[in-house]
Amino acid sequence: MYPFIRKARSSDIDAIVRLNMQLADYHRKIDGYYQSGAQTADGFRQFLEKIIDDDNYLILVAQIKDKITGYFIGTISEAKPFLVPQKTGRISDAFVEKDFRKSGIGRMMFDTLLNWFKEHRVKHLELSVDVRNKIGVEAWKKYGFQEFMLKMKMDL
Amino acid sequence: MYPFIRKARSSDIDAIVRLNMQLADYHRKIDGYYQSGAQTADGFRQFLEKIIDDDNYLILVAQIKDKITGYFIGTISEAKPFLVPQKTGRISDAFVEKDFRKSGIGRMMFDTLLNWFKEHRVKHLELSVDVRNKIGVEAWKKYGFQEFMLKMKMDL
Repeated sequence: MYPFIRKARSSDIDAIVRLNMQLADYHRKIDGYYQSGAQTADGFRQFLEKIIDDDNYLILVAQIKDKITGYFIGTISEAKPFLVPQKTGRISDAFVEKDFRKSGIGRMMFDTLLNWFKEHRVKHLELSVDVRNKIGVEAWKKYGFQEFMLKMKMDL
Repeated sequence: MYPFIRKARSSDIDAIVRLNMQLADYHRKIDGYYQSGAQTADGFRQFLEKIIDDDNYLILVAQIKDKITGYFIGTISEAKPFLVPQKTGRISDAFVEKDFRKSGIGRMMFDTLLNWFKEHRVKHLELSVDVRNKIGVEAWKKYGFQEFMLKMKMDL
């Protein structure tokens, strides 16, 4: 029952959308500013269909037996003009289903993404995490990420 | 010697670029990950020339006598697909020259931007600030902004 980390195929999209719905619902519990999974599912499916064959993206899934238990999405894009790096590796999505956490699946997917970034000569990684998602912030710090910018919001 | 807040004109671009260079150099002192003002000036000038007549942007300057002592840039754009708001008002730049701070200039420019956002029926504002820029973070909190997402980075 070891997890198997691999590049996602079109046939994984349904499973990834379901995991993303859990991720969206988790965020919506933190803050009603986020859409629920039911509201984002269609748009996210279209996004996956668009990027799954795009070489600037890598969608990874963790498979245990026949079940997809987690997914990570990495992308390589141009850095913001006010930053030194020419290109930046971004981790846009990272999710492991609750029952399968603390088993090293996240670390395996992260390491696989790191290798992909290094193969593409990416020197700098960025990601965003909700500041109130303490588990997420701590996990990324453990992986070597440092706090950089704070996104703030205000309702009018 | 009251500051006069107004929409920027093309003839203000040189002054705004000089202020932006100070802002960039301030960030570069925090972290070498940011470009210096000398490195960003040309690109920023082109950006200003592109947006100065774009109705989705408002560039404000604070003028005291003949001197431009600060500038703010606001923009209205589509929200990220995973968020509830349909459109978001963003404050992309905010700077007041050192000798003119604590005089209410920042507040006057912020209030002017707020009015513009409200006229355009914007209900949600976002901005990013370096997490180590304590003066900035505290100023935005005072204006009513709340911490939302944390951008993290890592060098490979």
